[in-house]
Amino acid sequence: MTSGAPATVRLRLDLAYDGAPFVGFARQPDQVTVQGTLERAAERILGQPIDATCAGRTDRGVHALAQVVHFDLDPEVDRAARALDDLEVFRDRLDRLVGPPITIWAARRVADDFSARFSATWRGYRYRVADTPALAPLARHDCWHVRQRLSLSAMRRASTHLVGEHDFAAFCKKAPGRSSVRRLDTCTIRRDDTGILHLRFVGNAFCHNQVRSLVGSLVEVGAGRREPDWIAQVLASGDRQRAGRVAPPQGLVLERVGYGRRWPGAPPAGVRGGIRTASPAAG
Amino acid sequence: MTSGAPATVRLRLDLAYDGAPFVGFARQPDQVTVQGTLERAAERILGQPIDATCAGRTDRGVHALAQVVHFDLDPEVDRAARALDDLEVFRDRLDRLVGPPITIWAARRVADDFSARFSATWRGYRYRVADTPALAPLARHDCWHVRQRLSLSAMRRASTHLVGEHDFAAFCKKAPGRSSVRRLDTCTIRRDDTGILHLRFVGNAFCHNQVRSLVGSLVEVGAGRREPDWIAQVLASGDRQRAGRVAPPQGLVLERVGYGRRWPGAPPAGVRGGIRTASPAAG
Repeated sequence: MTSGAPATVRLRLDLAYDGAPFVGFARQPDQVTVQGTLERAAERILGQPIDATCAGRTDRGVHALAQVVHFDLDPEVDRAARALDDLEVFRDRLDRLVGPPITIWAARRVADDFSARFSATWRGYRYRVADTPALAPLARHDCWHVRQRLSLSAMRRASTHLVGEHDFAAFCKKAPGRSSVRRLDTCTIRRDDTGILHLRFVGNAFCHNQVRSLVGSLVEVGAGRREPDWIAQVLASGDRQRAGRVAPPQGLVLERVGYGRRWPGAPPAGVRGGIRTASPAAG
Repeated sequence: MTSGAPATVRLRLDLAYDGAPFVGFARQPDQVTVQGTLERAAERILGQPIDATCAGRTDRGVHALAQVVHFDLDPEVDRAARALDDLEVFRDRLDRLVGPPITIWAARRVADDFSARFSATWRGYRYRVADTPALAPLARHDCWHVRQRLSLSAMRRASTHLVGEHDFAAFCKKAPGRSSVRRLDTCTIRRDDTGILHLRFVGNAFCHNQVRSLVGSLVEVGAGRREPDWIAQVLASGDRQRAGRVAPPQGLVLERVGYGRRWPGAPPAGVRGGIRTASPAAG
């Protein structure tokens, strides 16, 4: 290096977590958060302060199967140098240290201009709803049990109104001075062979509470309490009072984050245990 | 009735539970058990003491997807009469009252000579093992993460020694004065498309700790620490000290109980949410 600034190395982590034990992703004083737990463990291994940036902050109780974070480290620190020597050993140590509710799928070096947040071109969320009279007990950890049969075709008709670029103010927690215009690329709804509905949302970005609010309104339609076109009226109104209730957090999972061709893709399927890798998507 | 004894009505419940919050199935004073929770809820609805008998007791932390119980009730009690009037309403009330870790799939009237325990002709258990470097966080609730690649073919070779009628003393917690001879009909091992191993055991009955002890020994073989034939030597020795460690409870689930043709089968697939109904089996 010719510059006087210290040369840092940027690492990308791909990780998953069970949202239940955390008050959310974002670090907060005196609270158990994903970011805080992750940073403290990384600091212990790397011997220096760590400040992580993530692809998409998740709320209390919301899960992630494919969250992405990046952070910079000073490779001159002995422990960091050792970690960089064998990143799979580092990944394994970090995975054990963060505890069972967090899983580190992969750790790798990336260019300094990669940003987990700003390089992301799309995010994919999945929400699971059970409309069966009874639900397998372990499924309650990542499923909303509504106990009432829902009409898939009505929900699908309603969902067509949501795709495209819209001001989603009616489905978002207000952030004063911030735009709530987002682009929803796809919204697909299917029933799996155990009877559970999977609602998948892919878009450039999502506002706070947007997916859970959309799910709450789609369930209103599926249950027959609203017509499919009602969704279009709520969207156009921009009025949060008119939308359905916000669906509970445990049904939601950040399933995938896409980056441009320049950046490494998701970790290879081989390192994943317990999840079905989604079909590859461009970006 | 010509006899002076009160006529009772026998009910069969098909249920599932998350083993984590319970010290086990069997009722114990001052402990949170599946049986205690179930009986207390049923007593509240039916207005009388309930004493349930189950198909297979499960230990602390072990799950069930298809446990079966029966109990008798006095239909002259008002609340019981109302429950018998509409058993689906009763099932729904009971399902809500027992809380999310227990799921009541079905409730139905059966003949007085049906016994959840003694009419059962076979039991099927499943054990899940992840041998991937990392495991999806929610999978930890029903999976043993061994972090080391296991050889399926070695485990399958070892498993062939176990099928048949044997004295499984080497793989059981001793019950003084009780036989440990059991018939293991099938032991199948496959890897699912998320990389997790499913070990399935079907037999007439199982001793205490038998499945978890068999899994612990099969994993020794899969990891290459023992040869497949070692299992046969352990079995023949009848010596519990020679077997592998007992696998942890959360990987185990009572998956299916079979009854003779006289008795009603498992509840129809339609009432199940969140589980894939196993392929139908005779009995």
